[in-house]
Amino acid sequence: MNEPSLPIAFLSDFGLVDEFVGVVHGVVARVAPEVRVIDVTHQVRRGDVRAGALALLRAVQYLPPGVVLAVVDPGVGTERRGIAASTPWGSFVGPDNGLLAPAVAMVGGAQRIVSLENPRFRLPGDGVTFDGRDVFAPAAAVLASFQATLDDLGPDIPAESITPLLLPLAEVGDNVVRGEVWWIDGYGNAETNVAPDDLRALGLDVGDAVAVGIGSVTRVMVWRLGYGESGELGVVNVDSYGMVAVAVPGGRADEAFGLSAGVPIGFGKPAG
Amino acid sequence: MNEPSLPIAFLSDFGLVDEFVGVVHGVVARVAPEVRVIDVTHQVRRGDVRAGALALLRAVQYLPPGVVLAVVDPGVGTERRGIAASTPWGSFVGPDNGLLAPAVAMVGGAQRIVSLENPRFRLPGDGVTFDGRDVFAPAAAVLASFQATLDDLGPDIPAESITPLLLPLAEVGDNVVRGEVWWIDGYGNAETNVAPDDLRALGLDVGDAVAVGIGSVTRVMVWRLGYGESGELGVVNVDSYGMVAVAVPGGRADEAFGLSAGVPIGFGKPAG
Amino acid sequence: MNEPSLPIAFLSDFGLVDEFVGVVHGVVARVAPEVRVIDVTHQVRRGDVRAGALALLRAVQYLPPGVVLAVVDPGVGTERRGIAASTPWGSFVGPDNGLLAPAVAMVGGAQRIVSLENPRFRLPGDGVTFDGRDVFAPAAAVLASFQATLDDLGPDIPAESITPLLLPLAEVGDNVVRGEVWWIDGYGNAETNVAPDDLRALGLDVGDAVAVGIGSVTRVMVWRLGYGESGELGVVNVDSYGMVAVAVPGGRADEAFGLSAGVPIGFGKPAG
Repeated sequence: MNEPSLPIAFLSDFGLVDEFVGVVHGVVARVAPEVRVIDVTHQVRRGDVRAGALALLRAVQYLPPGVVLAVVDPGVGTERRGIAASTPWGSFVGPDNGLLAPAVAMVGGAQRIVSLENPRFRLPGDGVTFDGRDVFAPAAAVLASFQATLDDLGPDIPAESITPLLLPLAEVGDNVVRGEVWWIDGYGNAETNVAPDDLRALGLDVGDAVAVGIGSVTRVMVWRLGYGESGELGVVNVDSYGMVAVAVPGGRADEAFGLSAGVPIGFGKPAG
Repeated sequence: MNEPSLPIAFLSDFGLVDEFVGVVHGVVARVAPEVRVIDVTHQVRRGDVRAGALALLRAVQYLPPGVVLAVVDPGVGTERRGIAASTPWGSFVGPDNGLLAPAVAMVGGAQRIVSLENPRFRLPGDGVTFDGRDVFAPAAAVLASFQATLDDLGPDIPAESITPLLLPLAEVGDNVVRGEVWWIDGYGNAETNVAPDDLRALGLDVGDAVAVGIGSVTRVMVWRLGYGESGELGVVNVDSYGMVAVAVPGGRADEAFGLSAGVPIGFGKPAG
Repeated sequence: MNEPSLPIAFLSDFGLVDEFVGVVHGVVARVAPEVRVIDVTHQVRRGDVRAGALALLRAVQYLPPGVVLAVVDPGVGTERRGIAASTPWGSFVGPDNGLLAPAVAMVGGAQRIVSLENPRFRLPGDGVTFDGRDVFAPAAAVLASFQATLDDLGPDIPAESITPLLLPLAEVGDNVVRGEVWWIDGYGNAETNVAPDDLRALGLDVGDAVAVGIGSVTRVMVWRLGYGESGELGVVNVDSYGMVAVAVPGGRADEAFGLSAGVPIGFGKPAG
């Protein structure tokens, strides 16, 4: 193996029942047999671009430098572009719908973005488009194996013309931080868009009681380093990705408190 | 790594809950550590040979030449044979129950078929048979790593003695094409066994209205290049594998029209 | 690739929806790009250490010698230790909660066990612990790639101080063997902790009628080599891992007989 090659990290909403993920692996292996593909997850909720973008954002710092191939693409078959972006970390390939934007920003921003228009690096197909297979997989494979560069894939497009992903920012007030739930993990823990420093700005710290407002209900929970002790109704902690989260010791916070992605949540000092 | 080796593409109905898929990967890695295994899918419906055969048929053209290892095997433990077939594309290993037949035919047909009877290439086991692990995985691994050839695996069997898979053909009449649903993908799109040329034979083309008969109901849909526009009840298109399909813009055709694999469907020119 | 490296076999209860499995693969690839990771399964029931230990026990004999990375860890964030054990087969990395114990015993027992305390081989993190990512994955990666030895990972701990997994033994009486169900596989077959020799000790053999007691009901089934014939209510057989099991020809034994992991089951000679 004298050819250098980079690994591809592959994320999608294809699910694992159909053969779509296997077919994309096959296309990569045909183009670039030596390239390794790491499956990040393929069970992003169908068409949920924000959920896919957040999963990629959480994962990217743990992935080996190389190429990200991400496909959550409810607009497939419409006019939306396919893009490849180069960053200080490596390359990103996927639809221009905001999916890549937060991870690209986290690793330092795009140095250059091209529109995937060169037919030489597309598989032919005369039915409805399956761009994951026919456009994005070949582009990722040739980039990972240095068979092509961004120059070869298509024309430059200005960074400001690509579709951003508007992630809601937490609102830090004098007495309360208002944010929302970003993600419920498989254990039922609720990650929010609130950073620990936002709580510290209110004078709160680990060990303190925190008023947690969900809907019209405010509950007092303790800010724990871990998941707390059995018997606690719920705890506030910082999750393994560094964001403020709500957990239930030995249980599921989503079920206990009616939390799901997008639900508003507030944190403050308990009254009195 | 001086030894040449081919990739294995692995499809099964083992599911991903039990450790079966991992064990097969382990067996391959013990026999041939350098061989790469691509998982096509392992969530073929349990024992559904036709669904497995169709998934393999769709996938094979996108897989790197090498060895296909396919196991959907409701007859495990009965007299059915295990076989390996060589084709212009590569080798196929699996049960002789029709699973391999359509994909083998698509890549040019079997040049030679053997019955997997050589005990040297089987793992010993004294319980009920797990041929995926004990027979098919070792055979695929030695073929992929050139440790053995078909000659070594067992005696030749005549191509006409193997079990075919009878895939229903669409019936093209003067005014109507009668076919059936082959596959519902994870997005709810319904692929049929009707080819676009069958519709063209009726004088239909992209942009035309098409009468679609399902059960006792006939609906008029437009033949679209893509998934159509929100608001359309349903559309006819050619899916990414090149077959005529029925889709619902932003929705699921299976739910909207009561479609599932095997349901008869007819296409014709609208009356009047 | 001049560096030698061993494969990692990875088992967890992370599921495949979140990006956790992909992130662990990413961490391994960052530390040791050349190491291959085989996924055994990631759908062990959440927090079910015994189910994970049994899956690993069944799988280990089929895995290539190397490193096992196993994470079913309901005690994450508590005082339980992370450990690495060397055995004649290879190394095992995971939580000290009994998960590794049966597989370690099966491959010859631990030659040495260390506590994973060296911060050099941990990823930093200031939120709740995700030891699979931050502790176990890096340890497995450096062992598999020979970048470190057990000496480097932490202090020795005595084998007798680690947490065992108490697997219930079958009780062989004069006329009956009392055991329990260990595992329901995806096809509904019920594996027990009874060995075929336990039945033979009662004078039973393949082809004999066997009285099978589940709850207050005793049914007579035949000990079959395979899954039996359609029409049989149920059969006793030896499963592909060599343990006595109960199956229903063409059906599911779990549903037919109310079996699940942990349910007591007895085998004896039929009366009369």
